Amino acid sequence: MSFTKIDARILEKIRQAMGKDSVFTDAESLENYSHDETEDLRYQPEVVVKPSTSAEISALLKICNSHNIPVTPRGAGTGLSGAALPIFGGVSLSMEKFMKIIEVDTENLQATVEPGVITEEFINAVSAHGLLYPVDPSSKGSCFIGGNVAHGSGGPRVVKYGTIREYILNLEVVLATGEILWTGANTLKYASGYNLTQLMIGSEGTLAVITKIVTKLLPKPQNSVLMMGSFNTNEDACAAVSAIFKAGLNPSALEFMERKGVEWVIKFDDIKFDLKSGVEALLMIEFDGNDLDEIFKDCEKANQVLESFKCTEVLFADTAQQKEELWRMRRTMAESVKANSVYKEEDTVVPRAALPKLIKGIKETGAKYGFESVCYGHAGDGNLHVNIIKAGMSDEDWKHRLKHGIAEIFELTTKLGGTISGEHGIGLVQKEFMSIKYSPVHLNLMRGIKSVFDPNGILNPGKMIPDYN
Amino acid sequence: MSFTKIDARILEKIRQAMGKDSVFTDAESLENYSHDETEDLRYQPEVVVKPSTSAEISALLKICNSHNIPVTPRGAGTGLSGAALPIFGGVSLSMEKFMKIIEVDTENLQATVEPGVITEEFINAVSAHGLLYPVDPSSKGSCFIGGNVAHGSGGPRVVKYGTIREYILNLEVVLATGEILWTGANTLKYASGYNLTQLMIGSEGTLAVITKIVTKLLPKPQNSVLMMGSFNTNEDACAAVSAIFKAGLNPSALEFMERKGVEWVIKFDDIKFDLKSGVEALLMIEFDGNDLDEIFKDCEKANQVLESFKCTEVLFADTAQQKEELWRMRRTMAESVKANSVYKEEDTVVPRAALPKLIKGIKETGAKYGFESVCYGHAGDGNLHVNIIKAGMSDEDWKHRLKHGIAEIFELTTKLGGTISGEHGIGLVQKEFMSIKYSPVHLNLMRGIKSVFDPNGILNPGKMIPDYN
Repeated sequence: MSFTKIDARILEKIRQAMGKDSVFTDAESLENYSHDETEDLRYQPEVVVKPSTSAEISALLKICNSHNIPVTPRGAGTGLSGAALPIFGGVSLSMEKFMKIIEVDTENLQATVEPGVITEEFINAVSAHGLLYPVDPSSKGSCFIGGNVAHGSGGPRVVKYGTIREYILNLEVVLATGEILWTGANTLKYASGYNLTQLMIGSEGTLAVITKIVTKLLPKPQNSVLMMGSFNTNEDACAAVSAIFKAGLNPSALEFMERKGVEWVIKFDDIKFDLKSGVEALLMIEFDGNDLDEIFKDCEKANQVLESFKCTEVLFADTAQQKEELWRMRRTMAESVKANSVYKEEDTVVPRAALPKLIKGIKETGAKYGFESVCYGHAGDGNLHVNIIKAGMSDEDWKHRLKHGIAEIFELTTKLGGTISGEHGIGLVQKEFMSIKYSPVHLNLMRGIKSVFDPNGILNPGKMIPDYN
Repeated sequence: MSFTKIDARILEKIRQAMGKDSVFTDAESLENYSHDETEDLRYQPEVVVKPSTSAEISALLKICNSHNIPVTPRGAGTGLSGAALPIFGGVSLSMEKFMKIIEVDTENLQATVEPGVITEEFINAVSAHGLLYPVDPSSKGSCFIGGNVAHGSGGPRVVKYGTIREYILNLEVVLATGEILWTGANTLKYASGYNLTQLMIGSEGTLAVITKIVTKLLPKPQNSVLMMGSFNTNEDACAAVSAIFKAGLNPSALEFMERKGVEWVIKFDDIKFDLKSGVEALLMIEFDGNDLDEIFKDCEKANQVLESFKCTEVLFADTAQQKEELWRMRRTMAESVKANSVYKEEDTVVPRAALPKLIKGIKETGAKYGFESVCYGHAGDGNLHVNIIKAGMSDEDWKHRLKHGIAEIFELTTKLGGTISGEHGIGLVQKEFMSIKYSPVHLNLMRGIKSVFDPNGILNPGKMIPDYN
């Protein structure tokens, strides 16, 4: 599909619709909005706009739809799949001014929030009311809640509290054609026609622009304890994961980390952690609840499971400071890996009992193609982030041959009952692998849905669905 | 839209594709499949088919799609919105032979099940492995799990465990054009393109035919206690509902029952319950977990909340027999009302703090239009089943004037932030009210989605979306 370039006349229309203080064409702005956290990819938009209201977005989209100008919605730019990159130029639509927490409704345990609110700020705001919003991706300190919705983002608490899908009740969105609508209702149950709220979650800005979010909240559990188990092999650690659930336990987090990731995070983030020699993998296990005695009972039960899976040491953290230090280790791992090496991150997900097979397959693929890998992630969900490290690979192989290795990894996840992404989304960089998971008929259904919502294909073109735009 | 009648030639094609033992045209079969549990509505199909495999359904749909013959998928026929009624004749596609529990995967806490399995049988089968499938509609003893998925069915445990959307991971479906595909992956997280699994849930057989279901399971809590609080007014009972959650409690059920419903269920179902004079409403509150001490702590806290909301008496049930008798009272209420009177059931849902306003509005509407009402339901979710009782209303008013009263109730639920159905679906009988909740643009998006999946509109025509077929 070919798009129209933004000329002076169209730019003037946009300025009139948005107010000139919300429209940017200076070189610095174009550069700032040309990348997100995905590798070192850069695509410049022609214009950056920063609207403040749904009405402004409506006006903008009407102009762009009538002139066939691509619009790439953008949250905080923390994405790892390149979904916020304006690959056809056009408009980079930044949601950064949508930063109001409109209401925390303590009667209904719901909140209404704008998409540009930083996730951690939202979590803290509801926490002040004794409430829990359990969706806390590692990037929670910088990502926007709107980006989380658009990508189906997860985080460590999914394992107990369910995915973001369970917490998003209703969305105000602006369609490509400019209409503003609410996708659902502010209710915990909804059986009233096709669920457009659920369809928007994970649609990566390709169907509509999200402008308001109604979330479900929970009473906040008053206590938690964090355990850290050490293992001499990745396989032992992964095998223990399923056993913890089979023992009837329901942890509020169950994270896996490979030794190399821990070494790098100790080195780059000044984390205090005594990583013993011989330890190859760690499991972080958290239990939360109101009754500390019951939490300790769960910890004891988990301890027994770990011991029966050749766990060499178990560390307990129950002070706030100890817990925060261990969580910081896990959360900053991605940044440490990035700081240390040229890398690509893949977001594999399988049924959790298949984790040992997955990690074995990843290492075998690495050996075949010549890359190293650092794996960590939400093992309780079967969700493993695979950081592929360039290491001794030639530039040529990195550029052209590696993708065949990545394809093999996704063929493996698919064979194991899994998929291409658990929580990072498809965006630009996973798009070429979609046909590993999906049949042509399946992809055509996605194309059909896209064309219902965005007949001219102006919203985030070139993302998610292969051979569309 | 006009459909083709099934002539001898087409019938022969269907027989050849399905085997003659799966195709029925005798008068008794046509009569048996002409109704579900929705009021006294009857629409005869031309043919009843009972396939056993996805391949047979694929062959059937290819024939019907090419000849423009309507196909109405049918579960157990327990629906309350008329979604299984073959209003244009054609094929009634019964899923009753899809009755296998294919696998209970205790490693991954997942199960694969065919849609014709009775929900309670599935719950019991996973319970035998120490696992919980928490979606238990009142009709669980007779409804099919496939119908639950198709309708987004709920039940009392949604309040703690989340909706059916949280427990359905992946679906095998047959498209109207005959292709068989899996909608997603067997994973707890999924950020890999538009989520067709979620789109199928609640789509009422209008997009595809569900042939296999992969569910998430949980470790089964080992204990529960049930409390029953009595109130002298509906408003007092409803007001206590929000307060229970505000107190930080997380009940595994929170049900509301009006006095009249309790009287009828005592009379028609031989329930032993001492309903004191002056009591107008009851709240059933359940807490579950592994630690009985903690459950009792929660009960005590709930007791304090109830007392501060003018609760006149609290009854505790902790033996299996006591609990079962109280649950039986709640579960059989719909049948008792049905046995006692000509009635219509509406499935209202609002944010739970709006329940007092909702119930007040329903009674005022009843006074205006001359109907009585019996209300009960999942108050913890803000989900109130409104049984409209003909009482002294004339046949003429019942037939023509009542719908304006129902429209007023839905205008109220919409105004209160709610919607038209929480868990019963839209089907045939709520279809005319969809435009109260949805704008023409919104309905057009639904029509667009429908046409992507079912271009000829053969799947469950005349349901859910107004002015489609």
